Amino acid sequence: MSYLLTNFARQLALKYPIIQAPMAGGIATPKLVASVAEAGALGSLPLGYLSFEQAKKSILETRHLTQKPFSVNIFVPSDAPCRHDSIINMQQLLSVYRKELNLPDEPMPEVKETPAEDMIELAITEDIPVVSFTFGAPSKDNLQRLKRKGCFVIGTATTVAEGQFLESIGCHAVVGQGYEAGGHRGTFLNSAMMPKIGTMALISQLTNTLRIPVIGAGGIMNGQGLIAALSLGAEAVQMGTAFLTTFESGVSPSFRQVLLESNEESTVVTSMFTGKPARGIYNRFVKEMSQQISSDELPSYPTQHFLTQAIRKEANKQGKKDLCSFWAGQGVRLCRETSTSELLEKIAAEAEKTVQKLDTFNLRKN
Amino acid sequence: MSYLLTNFARQLALKYPIIQAPMAGGIATPKLVASVAEAGALGSLPLGYLSFEQAKKSILETRHLTQKPFSVNIFVPSDAPCRHDSIINMQQLLSVYRKELNLPDEPMPEVKETPAEDMIELAITEDIPVVSFTFGAPSKDNLQRLKRKGCFVIGTATTVAEGQFLESIGCHAVVGQGYEAGGHRGTFLNSAMMPKIGTMALISQLTNTLRIPVIGAGGIMNGQGLIAALSLGAEAVQMGTAFLTTFESGVSPSFRQVLLESNEESTVVTSMFTGKPARGIYNRFVKEMSQQISSDELPSYPTQHFLTQAIRKEANKQGKKDLCSFWAGQGVRLCRETSTSELLEKIAAEAEKTVQKLDTFNLRKN
Repeated sequence: MSYLLTNFARQLALKYPIIQAPMAGGIATPKLVASVAEAGALGSLPLGYLSFEQAKKSILETRHLTQKPFSVNIFVPSDAPCRHDSIINMQQLLSVYRKELNLPDEPMPEVKETPAEDMIELAITEDIPVVSFTFGAPSKDNLQRLKRKGCFVIGTATTVAEGQFLESIGCHAVVGQGYEAGGHRGTFLNSAMMPKIGTMALISQLTNTLRIPVIGAGGIMNGQGLIAALSLGAEAVQMGTAFLTTFESGVSPSFRQVLLESNEESTVVTSMFTGKPARGIYNRFVKEMSQQISSDELPSYPTQHFLTQAIRKEANKQGKKDLCSFWAGQGVRLCRETSTSELLEKIAAEAEKTVQKLDTFNLRKN
Repeated sequence: MSYLLTNFARQLALKYPIIQAPMAGGIATPKLVASVAEAGALGSLPLGYLSFEQAKKSILETRHLTQKPFSVNIFVPSDAPCRHDSIINMQQLLSVYRKELNLPDEPMPEVKETPAEDMIELAITEDIPVVSFTFGAPSKDNLQRLKRKGCFVIGTATTVAEGQFLESIGCHAVVGQGYEAGGHRGTFLNSAMMPKIGTMALISQLTNTLRIPVIGAGGIMNGQGLIAALSLGAEAVQMGTAFLTTFESGVSPSFRQVLLESNEESTVVTSMFTGKPARGIYNRFVKEMSQQISSDELPSYPTQHFLTQAIRKEANKQGKKDLCSFWAGQGVRLCRETSTSELLEKIAAEAEKTVQKLDTFNLRKN
């Protein structure tokens, strides 16, 4: 058994410099997070979409399953206003799917997001040792409060500019989320175009520019990928898709089956499900919706999320994969069905073998 | 000085498992290719866009500069028909730029592509030891002829399916061109969507699936990137953008300046210049054209290439960067102005340092 002790792993007392990505919406359950923590990596409990009470329950449930430290992930909601007529229009577009699933028409669903401040309060009260943020950053004030409590704070960047911003406000580390990554794009600074920086390019340029540790994410599925990221100067990796097919993950049977049958061409970045770009399995819903409406005309996040939520939930229940939002990254061909502890052991063994192989290439001569 | 002797490097008698990408259009000049060969990596001479006579001249010129082996790259043209009305429409759209540059209106430019067969014949006659292909594959028959001559044949893939196809027809190796890569996307098999597989995900999945050697490409700019690709199981890397700013490269002063000022957010994949998706610096031409016409309505490749060619050439001459096609990859922030031999030595030193650092992480314990 080999340990991979980067500074990051040492500092957080981890056996492996591996973070399990905070996959919201019932995927990274307390069970998954606890199993990752028990196995020696950093589990991340997603608080996104949860109420304060649900978030607290989720933390306590995880605590019940493990005494090891774990991280929580907090969404920093953007305040994009949502036009009423875009909602009416969307409800009309979606009604065909509601009919197909025998869902009753519903009035405007409640758009509820727990403010990041409340979740930060919860993290402080519950003495969470690592807090990560997606879609932006906490206020400097809140960040300082977390740091004074000894909390390790991780931001998420999709460009070097975002990484520099997160460093400047005092984050301890930055996840560099490459274009390969599954789920929501963490982009939060305005760019001329939506950034689509691949993991290889992003990590190289982040580590070259930032002083704080960089955590590589996007398309990393095995020990070879872990060593690749560390080669680029990352101190750790964050893996999501690789954990989706573990026994402990919260995916539905349909989702699991789709993952095991998918490949690198199966995913697409789409805003159709939630109003924000996210990478998931391309299916009929994405195709049909994209033909009828452009991303610019969608109700903004998170309104679109709540408008499509019942459809996706019911479709998943009925096994109608073509209407589900199955978030996954471009590495999906390499998914493995196994326990988290076995997955992590395999990754460590692959990492060790990879480094041994590299050593054979590097012959010194003069 | 360290050598990086992967099987690929051994087989082709290279000091480094590094291929300089075949950057057509006057960038990878005989001078650049020869300097790369002299320094111990594999230079690739692009024959794309050249007439048979120009191609032959280019090969002889390179031979004159080096006795070391080098590779040639051959485009396998697609036969997409081009509608006459789309050409008329395009000429109208482009006339504003012709005026701006004081270029006279021109009748339909000659669309000339040397058949791949002729270039293969040339490679055989000239006894070229390595031939790479872009946009597809040669016929099985031609591929066998090359192989009988002892030629090492490399295909270019942007998906695993393409890699499998190239392996099945008998290629010796496959360049896996990740989404980060500059220049034309090598995609040649039909997909539901244009594949945008990041380098990290693509290389991982190619090496996991193919038996022939995989060459990693896209966003690889330094020794850290080289080791990352080798970690993923690649036998070599192909680097384009990294060579753009060498002293020996054929870039114009404007192009060089733009590269040195660009970052990972500066590039975009666009079909506006040539009718085929290619990654280059985002500028006014791309922006304005994209607002006026969709990729589907463009004259097909290579007609669009020849329609915009004079504009791009003249703009480059006049230093009007906003109308040039400056192909570059997402790693552009890491460009270095140096000689190719110094660049390669730096990359090798970085690679060695990277492997040494990896060794310190991998502590065995029981």
